[in-house]
Amino acid sequence: MKKAEIIAVGTEILMGQITNSNATFLSRELAELGIYVYFHTVVGDNPKRLEEVIRIAESRSDLLIFTGGLGPTDDDLTKQILAHYLKKELVTDQGHLDKITDYFAVSGRKMTDNNKLQALVIKDSTVLKNDFGFAAGMMFTENGKNYILLPGPPSEMKPMFKTYTKPLLAASMNGDSIHLESRILHFFGIGESKLAYDLSDLIEKQSNPTIATYASDNEVEIRLTASAKTKSEAERLLDEVEKEIKLRDGEFIYGYGDESLADVVVKKLLTNKLTIAAAESLTAGAFQAELGAHAGVSEVFKGGMVTYQTSIKQAILGVSREVIERDGVVSAACAKEMAEKIREKCESQIGISFTGVAGPDSLEGHAAGTVYIGLSVEGFPTETYLFRFGRDRNHNRARSVKQGFQLINQFIDEKWQNT
Amino acid sequence: MKKAEIIAVGTEILMGQITNSNATFLSRELAELGIYVYFHTVVGDNPKRLEEVIRIAESRSDLLIFTGGLGPTDDDLTKQILAHYLKKELVTDQGHLDKITDYFAVSGRKMTDNNKLQALVIKDSTVLKNDFGFAAGMMFTENGKNYILLPGPPSEMKPMFKTYTKPLLAASMNGDSIHLESRILHFFGIGESKLAYDLSDLIEKQSNPTIATYASDNEVEIRLTASAKTKSEAERLLDEVEKEIKLRDGEFIYGYGDESLADVVVKKLLTNKLTIAAAESLTAGAFQAELGAHAGVSEVFKGGMVTYQTSIKQAILGVSREVIERDGVVSAACAKEMAEKIREKCESQIGISFTGVAGPDSLEGHAAGTVYIGLSVEGFPTETYLFRFGRDRNHNRARSVKQGFQLINQFIDEKWQNT
Repeated sequence: MKKAEIIAVGTEILMGQITNSNATFLSRELAELGIYVYFHTVVGDNPKRLEEVIRIAESRSDLLIFTGGLGPTDDDLTKQILAHYLKKELVTDQGHLDKITDYFAVSGRKMTDNNKLQALVIKDSTVLKNDFGFAAGMMFTENGKNYILLPGPPSEMKPMFKTYTKPLLAASMNGDSIHLESRILHFFGIGESKLAYDLSDLIEKQSNPTIATYASDNEVEIRLTASAKTKSEAERLLDEVEKEIKLRDGEFIYGYGDESLADVVVKKLLTNKLTIAAAESLTAGAFQAELGAHAGVSEVFKGGMVTYQTSIKQAILGVSREVIERDGVVSAACAKEMAEKIREKCESQIGISFTGVAGPDSLEGHAAGTVYIGLSVEGFPTETYLFRFGRDRNHNRARSVKQGFQLINQFIDEKWQNT
Repeated sequence: MKKAEIIAVGTEILMGQITNSNATFLSRELAELGIYVYFHTVVGDNPKRLEEVIRIAESRSDLLIFTGGLGPTDDDLTKQILAHYLKKELVTDQGHLDKITDYFAVSGRKMTDNNKLQALVIKDSTVLKNDFGFAAGMMFTENGKNYILLPGPPSEMKPMFKTYTKPLLAASMNGDSIHLESRILHFFGIGESKLAYDLSDLIEKQSNPTIATYASDNEVEIRLTASAKTKSEAERLLDEVEKEIKLRDGEFIYGYGDESLADVVVKKLLTNKLTIAAAESLTAGAFQAELGAHAGVSEVFKGGMVTYQTSIKQAILGVSREVIERDGVVSAACAKEMAEKIREKCESQIGISFTGVAGPDSLEGHAAGTVYIGLSVEGFPTETYLFRFGRDRNHNRARSVKQGFQLINQFIDEKWQNT
């Protein structure tokens, strides 16, 4: 089993100006390949300390991945110091140099000698293409250790790793005949510990596919990675485990891959040509803002209202005085009217509403975290849902928005697509 | 000058499950104290590798700050391994143990032997209180090296550092008679490089106060830190530099300390009892959602609309057919009517509107990033503002929201408060 170390080079990380999120990304990617990361190290743009870090890493790790220090300035020293330490030569990669030269020719900007430095690579490296910048990446083996050098900006580093580095690493790990296949399952509405508990037997006996869980923002994600002789065999192994997982907690899966819950819902709205409008109180527009993040959503997203004060719920949206006086604004009756009225006013097929107590204080005798969501769909009876979240204002608001997307997701899957 | 190393202990970081944001926080805090951080290291919950990391850090650094590994489980090993390495004893801190015992007594939960472990500290340490958890922190000196152990969860670590650790560190750095004072200035509307250029002479000759710039989310922040014999002398040094900075780029400063631009604006709205409503197109509710993040904003925030489709702008908000046909929805005239209509409908003193092209594609012949913001205030002529941002959809939307807050901020400062 390979022992990996991820070395970030950059004084800006040590000053706290940026966070070493590259190490997080690479750690996940390497875990998928079955490579264990034993150390993360961050060192500044200092030749002596960088060389010392290389010496230590070489003594304890088999795979050294560097990020940063490949730029055009005098501070950028990673390949120079590493070449010096390993007594290797730096040579110009002509393909890369041509690319840089072309860019400056086309853009009419002046190319400096420093820019040429970015096409220098350690001799006998496999050059890793940079589709989003000038710094060439590289990968080579020396004294039985593997070295990979990647640029620092995540927008350059991530695609260089995914597109050009990972396949080479997978091949070197497993021999060319082994195929690695990953699948990401997204869950909403179940906690990480409950999911891990439900799948504990699978997780304990895991080897191929590997199973890793990650929690974030009220969601859990499971990454499955299978290795096999062929892609279809790897897919078959993934299918098998996925089936097992679905038997236990399938109802909480909303999607696959890089898709967020909102991505999945927007896609379903577009596919089904279902128009939508929203009336938001405690979420104050956050649900609609999330819809608006998707280019092309204007085909189905009409708009809506933020009925923050009670007077706006009445005067602009048209919630009845009777409901407000009898049930209050934190009520199923209010959520129901809000969803129905916004649907009517915006002439949409779906109307969704959010009303409740964001917190931290209680309101009208309801505890912080009490949230009603109303869902009114043309041709269906209006449904309302009560949730009891916690005391944290912004958690309650974010959770409500996600919950809203999940209700629409379930509605489309369970009711709309059966009509 | 002290050389510091931040050591995070936790396999979950090496697996990519969480990012080492603790190191970012601590690096910034140490920079304020004038302590240089030379290395970040992450190591897993493994006794042998942890001990090796301690040995390396002890050989190259003067101040070793550990985060993580102070929890109650068998994986939590930081203080045990460090005590073993330094041949020091672990002793129970009675005050901490009493606190844990009390908690379990009050909550009726059963206390285990593992919980008692969290009150163990390295002998002769200064114990650092944990106001948000059970793990005791500690600080001690051995063989001329300073050791600080902090818990891993940021919600426990940050307050423990700020409240209990930083003052001790400042005193040990400077002698008790030296007072350290920091001030954070927030800028909007100027880039980090332009700001650094304008202040380059100040930044180059900096020593006391120190000047550090940080860029994030369309904003720049400057941290000034002065050391002096007294608090008032430190404040005087800060005032002097701040005055110099203000002479050059004062117009871009919106606030101080931990306050965001929205915080500043909400506070001014509340102080001036100025009510507000919004009509949003490309931002789709994001401006209102940001207002809604502030508890207590309902006193001044009435609500508003998300007029995403043109039909909603006309039918619900009441933008005139003439404007839409003549000028289109991406126009100053449309922004003006949107701001005025939403103010009328919601009976607020301020009406703000956002209309434009989020991107990535152009719309009605306008390039992506073309944004009009309208500001209508009771008793003032309505103003509209045109911005030309880039092609990135979500950057354009976020930038528009911030720009909206800045326009209101400037309006209150320059016009409202002079009435």
